Amino acid sequence: MALREKVYVLGSAITNFIGKFHPDFIWKKHPDFGKKENPSLEDYIALATKAAIEDAGIDAKEIKKGFVGNFAGELFSNQGHLGAVLAGAHEDFAGKPFMRVEGACASGGLAVISAVDAIQAGHDVCIAVGAEVQTTVNAKIGADYLARAADYRNQRSMDPFTFPCLFARRAKVLKEAGVVTDEDISKVVVKAYSNANRNPRAHMRAFKMSEEHAATASDKNPKFLQNEEYKDHMKVSDCSQVSDGGAAIILCSESALKRLGKDPADYVEFVAYGHATGPISGPADLTVLDVTTLAAQRAYEDSGLNAKDMKVAEVHDCFAVTEILMLEALGFAEKGKGAELVRAGETSLDGSIPVNTGGGLIAYGHPVGATGIKQIVEVANQILGRCGDYQVKNAPKVGITANMGGDDRTSVVTILRRDS
Amino acid sequence: MALREKVYVLGSAITNFIGKFHPDFIWKKHPDFGKKENPSLEDYIALATKAAIEDAGIDAKEIKKGFVGNFAGELFSNQGHLGAVLAGAHEDFAGKPFMRVEGACASGGLAVISAVDAIQAGHDVCIAVGAEVQTTVNAKIGADYLARAADYRNQRSMDPFTFPCLFARRAKVLKEAGVVTDEDISKVVVKAYSNANRNPRAHMRAFKMSEEHAATASDKNPKFLQNEEYKDHMKVSDCSQVSDGGAAIILCSESALKRLGKDPADYVEFVAYGHATGPISGPADLTVLDVTTLAAQRAYEDSGLNAKDMKVAEVHDCFAVTEILMLEALGFAEKGKGAELVRAGETSLDGSIPVNTGGGLIAYGHPVGATGIKQIVEVANQILGRCGDYQVKNAPKVGITANMGGDDRTSVVTILRRDS
Repeated sequence: MALREKVYVLGSAITNFIGKFHPDFIWKKHPDFGKKENPSLEDYIALATKAAIEDAGIDAKEIKKGFVGNFAGELFSNQGHLGAVLAGAHEDFAGKPFMRVEGACASGGLAVISAVDAIQAGHDVCIAVGAEVQTTVNAKIGADYLARAADYRNQRSMDPFTFPCLFARRAKVLKEAGVVTDEDISKVVVKAYSNANRNPRAHMRAFKMSEEHAATASDKNPKFLQNEEYKDHMKVSDCSQVSDGGAAIILCSESALKRLGKDPADYVEFVAYGHATGPISGPADLTVLDVTTLAAQRAYEDSGLNAKDMKVAEVHDCFAVTEILMLEALGFAEKGKGAELVRAGETSLDGSIPVNTGGGLIAYGHPVGATGIKQIVEVANQILGRCGDYQVKNAPKVGITANMGGDDRTSVVTILRRDS
Repeated sequence: MALREKVYVLGSAITNFIGKFHPDFIWKKHPDFGKKENPSLEDYIALATKAAIEDAGIDAKEIKKGFVGNFAGELFSNQGHLGAVLAGAHEDFAGKPFMRVEGACASGGLAVISAVDAIQAGHDVCIAVGAEVQTTVNAKIGADYLARAADYRNQRSMDPFTFPCLFARRAKVLKEAGVVTDEDISKVVVKAYSNANRNPRAHMRAFKMSEEHAATASDKNPKFLQNEEYKDHMKVSDCSQVSDGGAAIILCSESALKRLGKDPADYVEFVAYGHATGPISGPADLTVLDVTTLAAQRAYEDSGLNAKDMKVAEVHDCFAVTEILMLEALGFAEKGKGAELVRAGETSLDGSIPVNTGGGLIAYGHPVGATGIKQIVEVANQILGRCGDYQVKNAPKVGITANMGGDDRTSVVTILRRDS
């Protein structure tokens, strides 16, 4: 269903994404350890919100509704009820109607499309804020928390690291089918870090990833799964980061944009979205992202655009193999041909369809609830030419995002465009 | 803002609410202990969904979007990502766009108004499903989980039972101000159980609450707080139940209703809602529910109706004292005068404004995510004359609900009406 009323990106912000290996991340070997603390979940919500309002250049009172994207605040930070946290994030927010939405790693994308629906319903200026703090617990406990995005009762026992195991399972099937190689996976990883090294907000901005490091299992890059069947198909370097961070976007209707004295020609239009879910019990076919494929079909249909129109993409590379499947789900390659695009360099900054230009979940980082919002902000920033050292040349006019929850059980695909 | 398009209640369902003291609840002294298990969170989502579809008399494929209201599935049941759980709840649901929304104990109300917004956006038939399972852990652990609806960092330390303590604080202030007495609180409790005894779905349907029991602290009805300042102001009987259960409602636009061959005159209209949030750090004035007051003002304004038009109400009696404050927040009584309505019996089944006719959170039960949906379904059922032994005489034409999260930090007020 096409949008009844045009929607524009009025303002946005992304905080630094930090965690292990980021120079500012405070841990036991950091000189500030014991003196300073890393920002909290509440801090990230407030930081991203205030920066987005400043970017929009509006009075906070203009915001009619707000949505917080977060997956597991009640686990990592002992804090749920994040609509009320947002109500305390700005002095002019008390009383406003805010809520939290959740769809695992797609929580951020869901927050944005909730804002789009609210605008269609007449709440003409809305904010979506995403945040996650995951560094409060160790990796094994964190992996247990994140397994609540899978079918916990039936899938938790696969491996202490349930999600890496679920995607190692996909990698194995794809390799056995002969459509993805270990080298393809390494290429995705090296591109991610190379892009992140140009991005001052990226979690891994300071980490140099060589082709050899990405390609080789070693003490520094172990195969860390315990599951014997799948352990050969996942190395640390193949994974997205355990990051803290936040992102926010303010969307508004065309009439609100004009009321606020802005010229639509200066702004990026949010053209359409697709949203789909599949049963938590898991996918029927491990060689495709069928829920994302369905979400993409809906977004294309509602926008009147197709894969060939897309000039930049942010896709959900929770693991390197997922990025390859995403290329197929979004229609950039046929089934089984995604890796060919990677091999040909078409997804790099100067390729025909640059993908994850700021480093993706693998190297920009993956503060879960923020990710879906960050993706949309990144595409908007590419269209506006605001991406600095990782700006795609001749700023693209049209872009797409794909934000996925669990093992492709929730997917949100969005399309953004600027006409002028 | 008034709704752009009329919304109707197409169908609904409430499961039995069960827990301690319910005859069907399986625990160590139950004859089926070890042989059968209580329904899971996933079970309640599926049970409520299927029953609501049957009540609506539609093909499940008609549903365009869905929202799951749940507060703490990732804690009590190790399961988040409940949009994907809903996608698996019915054979025709795979691929549909579902998500979970959360606002602590107001999660159910938020799911319903998200459906209303989605209908305004053009998704003309939507489902809201609420569920919570809380009996998987003991009371102290459960209280810690629920404290994530408060400002955990700053309020958790008040008492092992944080929420009872937050409302004991309100009770103390109100008693010291001379506007509420212990006897008023007991009257609210006795009414709740009396209504629940007529309600076959109520958690406490089989528990007889005498005035003496409700009024007297005893071994069987202890003052259970440790906080010395507030412990005199909360007994077990003053509290809502730790319940498991689910509820679902299917809403649709007027044009969808007609497309489905239904006559709007046979259905209850969802007229308006108000939604507000306050900073998680807590209320400024303990003698009022200021966020609920604001939400009610919005619902009245958008509906063109006022407190005097309301003939039945479901309010968030998380504690007995809260019901008294709710009467003021919804405009049934002036500030400080809510208890007078209780003393005069005006909130009983045959009073001028029957409140919580099926037993409320105190005795119908409080499976957190289901509660806000249950309230709306209950008012719709009163309007339709479907409430059996607790049916208000001469079925009311107009009713209101107030669903609250945390210490009045999120509030959703809805107004329902039938014209014919």
